[in-house]
Amino acid sequence: MTGATAQAHTAGTAAPIPVLAVVGVGLIGGSFAAALRRAGQVGTVLGVGRNGPSLAKARQLGLIDEAVGAAEAAARADLIMLAAPVGTFGAILAEMRDALKPDALITDAGSTKLEVVQAARAVLGDRIGCFVPGHPIAGAEKTGPDAADPGLYTGRNVVLTPIPENHPAGVARVRAAWEACGARVLEMDTAEHDRVLASVSHMPHFLAAVYVAQVARSADSRQRLAIAGSGFRDFTRIAAGSAEMWRDIFLSNRAAMKAELSEVRAVLDAAERALDAGDGAALESLLEEAARFRRDWKAGA
Amino acid sequence: MTGATAQAHTAGTAAPIPVLAVVGVGLIGGSFAAALRRAGQVGTVLGVGRNGPSLAKARQLGLIDEAVGAAEAAARADLIMLAAPVGTFGAILAEMRDALKPDALITDAGSTKLEVVQAARAVLGDRIGCFVPGHPIAGAEKTGPDAADPGLYTGRNVVLTPIPENHPAGVARVRAAWEACGARVLEMDTAEHDRVLASVSHMPHFLAAVYVAQVARSADSRQRLAIAGSGFRDFTRIAAGSAEMWRDIFLSNRAAMKAELSEVRAVLDAAERALDAGDGAALESLLEEAARFRRDWKAGA
Repeated sequence: MTGATAQAHTAGTAAPIPVLAVVGVGLIGGSFAAALRRAGQVGTVLGVGRNGPSLAKARQLGLIDEAVGAAEAAARADLIMLAAPVGTFGAILAEMRDALKPDALITDAGSTKLEVVQAARAVLGDRIGCFVPGHPIAGAEKTGPDAADPGLYTGRNVVLTPIPENHPAGVARVRAAWEACGARVLEMDTAEHDRVLASVSHMPHFLAAVYVAQVARSADSRQRLAIAGSGFRDFTRIAAGSAEMWRDIFLSNRAAMKAELSEVRAVLDAAERALDAGDGAALESLLEEAARFRRDWKAGA
Repeated sequence: MTGATAQAHTAGTAAPIPVLAVVGVGLIGGSFAAALRRAGQVGTVLGVGRNGPSLAKARQLGLIDEAVGAAEAAARADLIMLAAPVGTFGAILAEMRDALKPDALITDAGSTKLEVVQAARAVLGDRIGCFVPGHPIAGAEKTGPDAADPGLYTGRNVVLTPIPENHPAGVARVRAAWEACGARVLEMDTAEHDRVLASVSHMPHFLAAVYVAQVARSADSRQRLAIAGSGFRDFTRIAAGSAEMWRDIFLSNRAAMKAELSEVRAVLDAAERALDAGDGAALESLLEEAARFRRDWKAGA
């Protein structure tokens, strides 16, 4: 038994969350468990996952105490965190549904919320009230249990998108868990979450990927990279992210992405018309509007 | 007399560039003068500009030895650097033309080259051979003589776009001056320069500004900024730049911008069709192409 698990068992009897189950023990789920453990909030931590070596690593690192199946996790856990790819939630919840404890809460860390809620509702049926959807706005280039860090959520935003069936006490318990991790918790409507994330997270990834692919396809792409500078570097950094992960996010948030893209195109069309017409005043006005908005954000950040 | 000017006068008799004139004594011109001075390449440095306080500051800092008019600079200088806004080049060259020394060389630091060469050709006529167009790929958020730094060009790329009328010895002298500043000098065709810069510098600024303006105009823009993270931060950093400067760059490089934008739109259209169709394979392929290209650049940088 490692020092971490010994400490966990000591805290177990009085901890606000006697048994936590984390589905997906990588950066997001592992950091959630580690942060709650450090804050003395959890007793036992159960790990669920399809990746044997990741589970073994998570145990070795003291992120989890035991690796168990989804049904056993459901039968024992007071709080369940889904930190697996959103496409797998339906199947996981189906395995858990009939074993859930009466007061169990389930939350998640998925990047989109409308589809997740829809899938959870379809599987959980009259138990849907125990599902409090969430999304920590944190991430890093690193992945896997080795990257898990009890400080990952310190000062970061976590968005909860409660649904009508949630009991206020359940929402408060999920909020308290995130606050114990050091996060700042915001509540938002489900559709608003997806619209806002489409705008400030998914759209930049989409545009950066489109732009970089265009540069990559140019006949003189090597020449271009040879003199690309710091503006190019920052603008395109996010285009180096995981293709599979972003594919799923775009598809899962398709409707909101489409709506934002239509508005981006309207501004792009106007900017191109100003360029065509040599309309310096219109171009400057657009640039000034963007620069002012961006500088204000920085000043407030 | 400051230490810097004393040193300059000592080096004066044997320096490769006995008299340097810098038009525009801000970050770009001031750093060029300071770097050449530090490298023992210049005797006297003349400063030309319309901004009295900037000239006085540049003298006080030892960036220049004297502030003079354009015609006097032309009559005395062996090398002239145009580091003023590109829109002013025609008027400056017109003042200089008839006073230029027989072996004088003129170079510039303008961000676009086709229009600059066209303007120089129109004014200089049969003296066009003395104009060696250039573009240091360096800049900073800071501006003005206070920001001038002899190390600004160390390890940075400088692109020269020689024209058929240039004498090879003249191009070599301009190249040697930049290399003395610590820069890596590349030569490129004028149109190729404008195309490459449109792609890796001007287009990111254009797209970032369009995107930020769209976010700024959304009804819930404050909500969006409240949960924007590091991806948004990096993708939009360049949108905070000078509206006037970028307006002029876009207008001056309009044709190349239009051509790039048309290709960006083609990739955007295909990406949106894939999104519409829920075509995960096509989306992943695009994302993977972009991610691979971006990671390769980083690895090589």
